[in-house]
This record gives sequence, structure tokens and C-alpha cells, in this order.
Amino acid sequence: MKHLAPVLVFAVLTASPALPEKVLLITGGTVVTVNANSSVIDDGAVAIKKDRITAVGPSDALRKRFPDAEIYDAKGKVVMPGLVNAHAHVPMGLFRGIADDLKLMDWLENHIFPAEKANVDEEFVRWGTKLACLEMIRGGTTTFVDMYYFEDAIAEETAACGLRAVLGQTLIDFPAPDFKTWEAATAGTAAFLKRWQDHPLITPAVAPHAPYTVSATHLQEASRMAREAGVPLVMHLAEDRAEVERILKEKNTTPVRYVDSLGILGDHVLAAHMIWPDDEEIAILAERGVGVAHCPQSNMKIAAGIAPVPKLLAAGVDVGLGSDGPASNNDVSIWEEADTAAKLHKVNTGDPTVINAREALHMATLGGARAIGQGDEIGSLEVGKRADIIVVGLDGVHQTPLYNVTSSLIYATKSNDVEAVFVNGKLLYDQGRFLTVAADEVLAKANEYRDRIRQSLAAAKN
Amino acid sequence: MKHLAPVLVFAVLTASPALPEKVLLITGGTVVTVNANSSVIDDGAVAIKKDRITAVGPSDALRKRFPDAEIYDAKGKVVMPGLVNAHAHVPMGLFRGIADDLKLMDWLENHIFPAEKANVDEEFVRWGTKLACLEMIRGGTTTFVDMYYFEDAIAEETAACGLRAVLGQTLIDFPAPDFKTWEAATAGTAAFLKRWQDHPLITPAVAPHAPYTVSATHLQEASRMAREAGVPLVMHLAEDRAEVERILKEKNTTPVRYVDSLGILGDHVLAAHMIWPDDEEIAILAERGVGVAHCPQSNMKIAAGIAPVPKLLAAGVDVGLGSDGPASNNDVSIWEEADTAAKLHKVNTGDPTVINAREALHMATLGGARAIGQGDEIGSLEVGKRADIIVVGLDGVHQTPLYNVTSSLIYATKSNDVEAVFVNGKLLYDQGRFLTVAADEVLAKANEYRDRIRQSLAAAKN
Repeated sequence: MKHLAPVLVFAVLTASPALPEKVLLITGGTVVTVNANSSVIDDGAVAIKKDRITAVGPSDALRKRFPDAEIYDAKGKVVMPGLVNAHAHVPMGLFRGIADDLKLMDWLENHIFPAEKANVDEEFVRWGTKLACLEMIRGGTTTFVDMYYFEDAIAEETAACGLRAVLGQTLIDFPAPDFKTWEAATAGTAAFLKRWQDHPLITPAVAPHAPYTVSATHLQEASRMAREAGVPLVMHLAEDRAEVERILKEKNTTPVRYVDSLGILGDHVLAAHMIWPDDEEIAILAERGVGVAHCPQSNMKIAAGIAPVPKLLAAGVDVGLGSDGPASNNDVSIWEEADTAAKLHKVNTGDPTVINAREALHMATLGGARAIGQGDEIGSLEVGKRADIIVVGLDGVHQTPLYNVTSSLIYATKSNDVEAVFVNGKLLYDQGRFLTVAADEVLAKANEYRDRIRQSLAAAKN
Repeated sequence: MKHLAPVLVFAVLTASPALPEKVLLITGGTVVTVNANSSVIDDGAVAIKKDRITAVGPSDALRKRFPDAEIYDAKGKVVMPGLVNAHAHVPMGLFRGIADDLKLMDWLENHIFPAEKANVDEEFVRWGTKLACLEMIRGGTTTFVDMYYFEDAIAEETAACGLRAVLGQTLIDFPAPDFKTWEAATAGTAAFLKRWQDHPLITPAVAPHAPYTVSATHLQEASRMAREAGVPLVMHLAEDRAEVERILKEKNTTPVRYVDSLGILGDHVLAAHMIWPDDEEIAILAERGVGVAHCPQSNMKIAAGIAPVPKLLAAGVDVGLGSDGPASNNDVSIWEEADTAAKLHKVNTGDPTVINAREALHMATLGGARAIGQGDEIGSLEVGKRADIIVVGLDGVHQTPLYNVTSSLIYATKSNDVEAVFVNGKLLYDQGRFLTVAADEVLAKANEYRDRIRQSLAAAKN
């Protein structure tokens, strides 16, 4: 997926233009840039002015260049781009662990759908979003992609938390918790796209659920909406065998070929899962510039299959990593997705050299940024990009000794090692303190919801 | 593998018999027993007298029964058996991340073997063991199985750290860092077995490396030593395709059939990896009572293959989880192995119901204990068993909300959530404090070793 300039270019932040612009210097750490050369700068620094990175280089040089800068000391730590979670259904965090180890239809029809039917309203979505934002901030995810209902409320809560997100309002050919008809849903989506079109953090998107839950006509309508508004189109595609068989039976072709025949695919499209494309379909994805969100842990847990990620990358497809919903994972750690992706494709191909640590780190950052059309804005530490930066501890018992920082980040580092999180130049988390979310309140509310959800499921059984 | 009574039965601890026996009550938590009924006791308690569990039940009842007990408050937390790491090479922690993403022979011959040749001595093994013990204690592993060199030094350091372990002195048909000849190695192993035979924490074992690195005669000699001493025999078996092909070519049979034909297999044998047994070989393992150490993350990373764990369990084989060496993983977290095992076998079989959370938890605890012949002593919270107990936090952002404790433990909980670790009734870790290891000293020493190892590799290249 290519850069979607119109949505981001007008972003203006709150700094008062009369004052001299203050520079923040994150200094003394090992700067893992994820630039084209995979440059790593020992004792490096990153300079931030308002929402942008204005310099990246050796600490000494940047201290001289910005003598009055405010200093964030990252000595002994990694300074790197924030992680990108390229596919999630964040409010489903409130269903984390509600049911596991079940066949997909059993899980959905007997657990998730009844729980959603009885509980999902705008308020639910707000608290679920706060819970997921809390977990993502804790783990150094600075940008996420969502597909759910009441996406306008998700946008409000995400913006309040200070995270960056591509938020896809779901369109589906069934009555949904937010909109009961297609017409209401498209009208609501249009308003949602308009409201958030110039926001510095939120990129609104159109999210037709999947090729088997949205008709051809409706898929094309959703596609038109996205193209006209210049926003991403996010959808599930080629996720499991049942989908492939159904499309084969109903449309006499395969999922990627089918949606391509509808004229939907383009460089504004992000396809989640993409487990079952054949080689020709991979070539179609590459040619159209479609981005892919690879969700290894969810795909494993639901036994959906293993996406052909080495082939997708070889074809030049931009691939990011996604957690999927917290109810099917059961967490939202991009560190774990990266570690799992690196290992899964090795055993799946029988080749321990595929998806090396550098490639896994790329998928977790710049690959994800490119897949969602923001490769020019985020995903690496380069001058002019948004200041979405995380500081990561390197001296945990599980990380010691340290030979190679990239290896350590992918194969040893955990969410819990993240020490500070900046998004758009703003500090959201620092040394155990959440600066934009009232963590205790959110956790208490999540437990209240747990009780309410349990009661609703018990009542539904009687 | 069945219980090896002779080694453990004479364990005597240091309590002075004249004093009344003090009871420690871990109380108020959710007690996950891992007993035959998978009982979970809300607001439960576990009573410890010296090194043994003397009662398990509701907190109220146990407080009344032991009014003078010292209290460890576990309110809001899980109280469960310590995890069992059924296969490791703990000193290799000093090589963590030294090289990754390579073909096995490239990794071994160009990185690991040269690093071992230049650096592995008794002192190296001591510090590597301390580092791994630190990481295992932090993550709630209370028992581990090792195979390496200088195992006597590993035993001393492990005992000093207070962890329980089955320690296999490696026997191999090549000059090793500790013993240069087979005769020296067997003599050293005999002394090692004798020295540790009655230790409360350490179970010495004989560890012929693999069927392709130890001759038939030597395998039988190793087997005789283990049987005569009444100790476990630990070996790598059916680990990768190259091994299977080599045994087929040289012995005209497959690895499990081959070692069975030598009369080696029995309920004192722990086979690591076991990726490539066919159905008949699985039946042989079950019949002989062989335990299996399943190492999913290492097997994935090295692309060795996926062990047929659902089939092994269905055949009645005791399966535990192992981290393998920290250099090929790159951590020693049994939480991650359990999570990975649950997910990997789902996607591998296409069935999301296999290896459910309860089964994964069982492998991480009692399954591992049974696989190493200590199922009567550890692996569950039951009266009479050793007090190897961990207290695990449940209120992390990534664990909230909590619907089902077993699901949370397998799919959401991480090493970092462990709050207290008891082994043999002794507190080793509590709320961030290591009580038996000088953590800072070990970490500093590990970094010193890193510098030394790097220099040795650079020197070897010149």
C-alpha cells in the first residue's frame, strides 16, 4: 500500500507559533533506525521538534547542534520506531479469554456472537478501546489498524489516548451493533470519514468485512467510498479454507481474483490474514500494491493456516504484523507476533534462514507502516517523519548478554521491556506511568464488564 | 517416565528436629492445583511444612487448621505448581543471540562450536548456569533438565540457587570441553552420579548426546550406568530429518527403533525433541514409558520440524515442555513454550481444539514432572508433594479482564507476571527480589563473557 498523502499532509498540532520551537533530544541510546540501510547508531540520538523527527545521529553531534534541547536520557536502551499493529478489533479486549480452543463456528456462534449481541454498544466500545490502547502503549505499539463497530467512538478514545490509528468502520450485509441497514451504515461511514479526515492521529477507513459477508455490489460501493475520500480500504481476505471453498462455489474463482475482478484492489487496500493466495494471486497483490496484515498467533490459534509470508515479501508485497482481536490471541503484543512470525515461517518452509530478525523487525515497523499507506510518515527513525518513537530496555535477565540488538529485539525482548512511548512527539508512557489513560479506572471497568458479560451469557442460556 | 523413587526418597533437609515445625500458609489466591480433576480453588490456600505440601484447600479452613502459620498473602493472584523446563543446555545462555537465522550446520560449525571451543570451561559453565537460573526463577520455572559439560559444576550452582534439576552429564564420542576421552567421561560421570545421588534438589543423570554422536556400544554402556545407578537417561532423539536419514543409511532403521533395539528405552528415559517418530515408534515410546521433552520454539527457529504432540499424548506418552539452549530460542520461558505449543499444534493439525489450555498447562507442570520421573514428587499442588510453588499476578493490563484462569495462564500470562517462587519450601524470589542469586553480579559477568567471547571469535577468524 502506498502513502496516502491527502489524509496526513494538513496535520497541524497545538504548539503556539509565537514561542521558539522546543527540541526534545532522546540521547545516549542505541538508535535502531529501520532505515533503508538498517542503520544502528551506538550512543545515538533522535531530535524531535513538535510532532516530527528533525535529526538522527550520534549523541555528541546532536547535543552540539541542539544545546538548549530538553534531554530524555536513553543510555543503555534502544531507541527505535514505535511498533505497528496492522490488524486488530480492539474493543474485543473485553472478551479476552471468554472462550478458547474451539472450532471457529462454535467459538463465534456460541460465544462471541451472543456476547456481542448482548453487550456491544458505544459505551462498551469506548472502554474496550481504552483497555487495548493501554495494552498497546505498554508494549510499544504506536499505530494500530482497527475494524469494528462504532468506529467513531473508537476514534475519539484513541485520539484521547494519543495513539495513531487507521480505523475502519465495518460494513457488513447483516444488522450490526451500530447500524442496522446497509444504507445507515454507509451514511454513518461517510460522516465518520468526513469528521476525521484531517486529524493528526486518526486516519478513518472503510472496512467491508470480508468477500463472503458483503455482496459484490456492496463491496464496489465500499470501494468507491474509500477511493473518493482518499482513505484506506481494510478487509479480511483469503483468511481460511472455508472462505476459499465458498467463493469457489459461489463465484467460481478464488478470493483475491474475485475481489480484483470487482476492481477493488489498489494501493489503498489493506488485506488482513491473506493465508490462502496462490502464486498468481500473490502477483496480483504485488501489482495492485495491496498491503497485507499478517496475524501469525491468531491464525495459529484458530487453525486458519499459515500465510505464505516469505513469498509475499519476495513478490514485493508490503507485509505488516497484526494481533487480530485480543479475544483470539489472547494479547496484543507485536513483539510476540514478530518472534512468532520469524519462527513459524522457518519451520513451515523447513528453512531457518527465512524471516530473519531484521525482516521480522521490518514487518513490525516500516513494513506495517507501508502496508497501511503511511510508509512516508512513520515506521522508521528518519528526518521529517512523525516522532513515533519507543525506548526499550535491553538489560533484562532474559536479554543478557547482548550480542546483536536486532536479534535481541526479535527473539528476546517482550512488551514489558518497553520503557517509554512517544507518539507524534508526545510522551504517552514513561517508566511505568501512563500519561494519557487512567489505567486503574480502565482495569476496574474491564472487570465490571466481565461480570456483566458473564451474566448476559448465563441469561441467554436460560 | 515413571517415578524414580531411589534418588529422592532419602532427601533430608536442614530443619532442626528439636523445634516445632513451622507452617507457611500461602493464602487468599486462586489455587490452580493441576491435580487429576484440574481443581481450581478460589480463595484457596496451600500449607507448607519444611519442604513438603501438607494441605491444600479453602483459605478459611486452612487458616483455622494452622492458626499459628506464617502467612504469605496471595490475594488476587494464582498459586500454582512451579513450571518444569524439560530440556535445556543452561550454560549456553552466555551465547544467547550470538548467531541466528542460519542453517543448523552453519550455526554450529561457524558459530557455536568455535565459541564453545574457545570459551567453555568450568568457570564459564558456572556463570552460564547462574544466568539461566536467574532467568528461570524470574519466570517461575522451579525444575529444569540440563545436558551439557562440567555438569558437576552446574549441579553446585543450581543447588546454590535453590532450583530443582535433573542434570545430565554429556557423553559423546568426541573430545568434549570437560572430558577428552570416553573413558574419562564415564569415570567422571560415575563420580558425578555418586556425589549427587541423595541430594534433595539435584537428580544426576547420564546424557549420551544423540544416536548419531554416540556409538551403539557406548549407548549401551551409558544405559547400563543409568540403570545401575537408578538415574534418568537423557538424550536427543528423532530431532531432525538429517538424523533420521543418517540412522536409516547407517543402521537401516529409524532412530526410536534403533535405540530400542539396543535395549536402552525404559521409563527412566527422557527423549528430547522427538519430532520424527512414526506411529509405530510412538507406540514403542508409550510401551517403554519413555518421557518426551517437546521444545516448540527451538524446533521452529531451527526449522527442525513439528513434533507429533497430540499423537504422543493420545498414546499416553508423558510430554513436558523444554526451552532448549537459550542460544537457540532465545530465552528460557516455559510460559512462551506453553502458549506456542497450544497454538502450533492447532495450526499444524488444522484443528483448533487440540492442545487446549488445560493440556498446555499440564505439559508445563505435571506432564513435565512425569516425563522426568518425578510425577509423584512435583508438578501439582497435592498433599505430600514437594513445595515447588509459584505465585503469579493476574491483574496485568494484558491479562484483564479475567474470565478463565487456565486460559489466562496459557494465552496471556508472561514470565514477568511471576511474583514469588518457592522451591522445596524455600522462597527464591519475591516481588522483584532474588533471594539466592546476586543478580547484578551475574548480569555484569555475563556481559564480561560476551566481550571475551566476541574477542575469541574475532581471534579465531584471523
